[in-house]
Amino acid sequence: MANSPSGESVSERILRVLESFDTDRTALTATEIGRLARLPSSTAHRLVSELVATGLLERLADGRVQLGMHLWEIAQRGSRALRLRQVVLPYMERVQTRVREHTQLGVLENGEVLFLERLSDPHAVSNITRIAGRLPLHASSSGLVLLAFSPDEMQGDALEGRLDPFTPDTVTDPDRLRELLAQIRRDEFVVAPGYVEPVSTGIAVPLRDGAGRVLAALSVVVPRAAPTAGALEELRAAAAGIARRLPRGS
Amino acid sequence: MANSPSGESVSERILRVLESFDTDRTALTATEIGRLARLPSSTAHRLVSELVATGLLERLADGRVQLGMHLWEIAQRGSRALRLRQVVLPYMERVQTRVREHTQLGVLENGEVLFLERLSDPHAVSNITRIAGRLPLHASSSGLVLLAFSPDEMQGDALEGRLDPFTPDTVTDPDRLRELLAQIRRDEFVVAPGYVEPVSTGIAVPLRDGAGRVLAALSVVVPRAAPTAGALEELRAAAAGIARRLPRGS
Repeated sequence: MANSPSGESVSERILRVLESFDTDRTALTATEIGRLARLPSSTAHRLVSELVATGLLERLADGRVQLGMHLWEIAQRGSRALRLRQVVLPYMERVQTRVREHTQLGVLENGEVLFLERLSDPHAVSNITRIAGRLPLHASSSGLVLLAFSPDEMQGDALEGRLDPFTPDTVTDPDRLRELLAQIRRDEFVVAPGYVEPVSTGIAVPLRDGAGRVLAALSVVVPRAAPTAGALEELRAAAAGIARRLPRGS
Repeated sequence: MANSPSGESVSERILRVLESFDTDRTALTATEIGRLARLPSSTAHRLVSELVATGLLERLADGRVQLGMHLWEIAQRGSRALRLRQVVLPYMERVQTRVREHTQLGVLENGEVLFLERLSDPHAVSNITRIAGRLPLHASSSGLVLLAFSPDEMQGDALEGRLDPFTPDTVTDPDRLRELLAQIRRDEFVVAPGYVEPVSTGIAVPLRDGAGRVLAALSVVVPRAAPTAGALEELRAAAAGIARRLPRGS
C-alpha cells in the first residue's frame, strides 16, 4: 500500500497504465506502457505483470498486453452507464429507424460530453462522435444541452475556459453562448448547424429522470441540408418516453 | 508498490474493490467494500479514497461510492469487446428486426460465456442472459458453440468439470456432450431447446474472423414452441456478413 517516492498512490499509477490504451493503441509492450504512463521501466514491468495476474490486462502471444475482457465486464456490470443505456437504447433504436443517420447518447463527464452509445446508418453523413469518445461542451449539440442545464458555476467555468472553434460556425463568443444556453433552457432543445463539422447538423434534447433532473443528452446528427423538424419531433417523443422509465436518481 | 503482509499485490486488492460492485450493488460504503473484498477496514477506506481521487470510483452525495464513468470509458475505449461489438451490432439489429425475440453476442472468458450485447423485444420470451453476465459453457447455446471450437484441452477441462443442470433438458452427460460438440463442428450451429430455461430455445452460430478463427458466438433465444429454421437462416447470413468485415486477428 506504500506510496512511491514521488508521493503518488499505486492507484494513480495503475490508472495511468490503463489509460495508456486507446482505440488506436489496443496492444502495447510493458516498455511502451512505461513511456506512455511516465513510469520507470521496472515499475511498468512489475505493474503490468500484476495486472495480467488479475485479468485486468491480458497478454497476447507476441508478449504485448491489451485491456482484459474482465475490466470491461466489471466496468459494465456495476456502472450507471449500462443502466442508463439499457433504458434509452430501445428509444434510440426507434429514433434511428425513423431518422436513419446517427443517434447518440451523451453524458457530462469531467467538463466534456462523454458518448455512451451511437447508432449509425452505413450511409449516414460524416460524424466525429465515437462511443466512449468525448467532445467539448460548447461545440456539440449534446454538450450545449448538458451545459445549459448544469450548475451556474460549471457554466461560468466553461464560458471562461478555452472555447476553440471546430468550424467557422462554432459559437465561441461567451456572450453569444450565454444567450444560446438561455434559449436551450426555454426550448428544451438545440439545433447546431455546422458547429462540429461543416456538412452536419447536430440536434439534441435533454433526458430527464422522473424527478426532472437532466441525466444525459439524446442527439441526432443529420446532413446540414436536411430538414430538422421531423428529427426533433422524434427526439422529443423519445425523451418523454424515457422520463417515464427513469426513476428519480437513476 | 510494496505488497501487503499477506503477499498480495495492490493490483489484486484494487481488483477486489472494483469487483465488489455489481448490477444489484451499484453504490457501497467503504465499510461494505471492505467486507465484500475481504480487506481490513482501514485498507478499504484508504483504497477507496485513492480510487475516488483517480476517478475510477465516484463519491455520491450520501458518502457511498460507485464505479466511475471514467472506468467505463477506459474499458470501452481500448477493448476488443468494443471493436467486435461495433462490427457485429448492425448485423444483430438485422437479426433482431426479423426474429423479434432476443439476439445476443457472447465470447469465451475464463471458462464461461461472457455476453457483450443483447437486444430484446419488449414482448420476448423469458431469457436469463444479461449484458456483461455469464453462463456456463455446457448449458447455453452460445457456450456450446464456443466450447465446440475451443482447444481440445479446454474441452477436456470443461467435460471433466462441474456439469450442473439448469433444467431437466440440460445435457450433463460427458459422452453426450462430446457427441453434441462434434455435431456442432459439423453443422456450424446448435439448437438448444430448454437447456437453460424450459420455455426457451437458444440457437447459436460461431462468428469467425477472416482467417477462420472463432471469435464469438451469435445467438437468438426464442419461445420453445417457435419454429427455428428462419432464425437459424438469419444467424447464418449474419455470420457470413460478419466474417467479411472482421480482419484476421480481430
